[in-house]
Amino acid sequence: MADVKLIIGNKRYSSWSLRGWLAMKLSGMTFEEVVVPLYRADSHTALKAANPDAPPKVPSLKVGENAIWDTLAICEYLAEQCPTANLWPEDVFARARARSVVAEMHSSFMALREHVPMDFSKRLPYAGLPDEVEADIARICEVWRECRSLYSEQGPYLFGKISLADVFYAPVLVRFYSRSVPLDETCQAYFDTLWALPEFIKWRQTAEKEEWFITSYDPD
Amino acid sequence: MADVKLIIGNKRYSSWSLRGWLAMKLSGMTFEEVVVPLYRADSHTALKAANPDAPPKVPSLKVGENAIWDTLAICEYLAEQCPTANLWPEDVFARARARSVVAEMHSSFMALREHVPMDFSKRLPYAGLPDEVEADIARICEVWRECRSLYSEQGPYLFGKISLADVFYAPVLVRFYSRSVPLDETCQAYFDTLWALPEFIKWRQTAEKEEWFITSYDPD
Repeated sequence: MADVKLIIGNKRYSSWSLRGWLAMKLSGMTFEEVVVPLYRADSHTALKAANPDAPPKVPSLKVGENAIWDTLAICEYLAEQCPTANLWPEDVFARARARSVVAEMHSSFMALREHVPMDFSKRLPYAGLPDEVEADIARICEVWRECRSLYSEQGPYLFGKISLADVFYAPVLVRFYSRSVPLDETCQAYFDTLWALPEFIKWRQTAEKEEWFITSYDPD
Repeated sequence: MADVKLIIGNKRYSSWSLRGWLAMKLSGMTFEEVVVPLYRADSHTALKAANPDAPPKVPSLKVGENAIWDTLAICEYLAEQCPTANLWPEDVFARARARSVVAEMHSSFMALREHVPMDFSKRLPYAGLPDEVEADIARICEVWRECRSLYSEQGPYLFGKISLADVFYAPVLVRFYSRSVPLDETCQAYFDTLWALPEFIKWRQTAEKEEWFITSYDPD
């Protein structure tokens, strides 16, 4: 097996890094973790040094001399290379729906991302959010309810068993938690399930202890 | 085979519809095309009527009663269901790179998208573009040059033979054409190859004849 490195950013703030790391953990592939602190003068140079053939962004994967970048491409690579991990649902239309909600997360919810960054050190009481953020939250909750309605008999995750769909929505939990976003019973139950995932707890504990703070990243 | 419908928007303007339609054509899957004019009072209702289980966006795919939405999820579904079409490169790391540049297109290049919408009826002389648009163009050209440098022996497309990577970059050609963006020899050769793809020509000819114009869509 080639030497495999996952290059990630700050665990407190980098939502895409969290997704890439969770997918690696769930895949069972052995890998070395390379953390590059972001928003520093030397971040660009450090990223290019860690994975010369990838754009200077996180996460990226280096497999031998090959670069794979962007979380979604990394996830599809893992789904292919680690078939026993069942990273996608087995049924063809469940899998197509899982890819649909993953692709939607990949390209959408810009208002939520902009106004409510992932930040494991933040916890505020709920005080309402701009309309476009509330619209993003409403759509995410609709996605969760639809998935739970369809696949609840097969397990407590979005598609029953854990899948890349849960990986993609994991950072949303941190955004919701940081602003105490109220959730209905179905969404709260799903939140609680994913929040208790051992790998997610491990990342959270490391993120909370991280000594790098990026004050300019906070829109408040 | 279940009844398959691809729901798309105006051919003149909808870049994601073009991608979904090209992928369907290259896959060889038989499908019915449902065109819903966008930015109208009844667009939302028409989209929900055409594919009730999908969000009201284009493109979406309806396979029997199953909804698959977002171009990337549609493309992965087609790659799986139509293996003889070879929509992804055969080599594992070429395929991973193809997915990387596709995922990058899926989530990036916001400045280019905002300032230079796909519009088949527009053709202006090159007059420079805002810095962030030029940066997007530079990165796209870098992606093209890297791919062409690695896979030119296998054919004239990004990964040699035509693949979903070309599908994802096809609307960029229209944006470049509309502003006469100057290209180096390698990028121009790739542009000319994809511009001459029979399916692309067919879409373009229909788009040019389309009678719907959206004037408010134009940022100029």
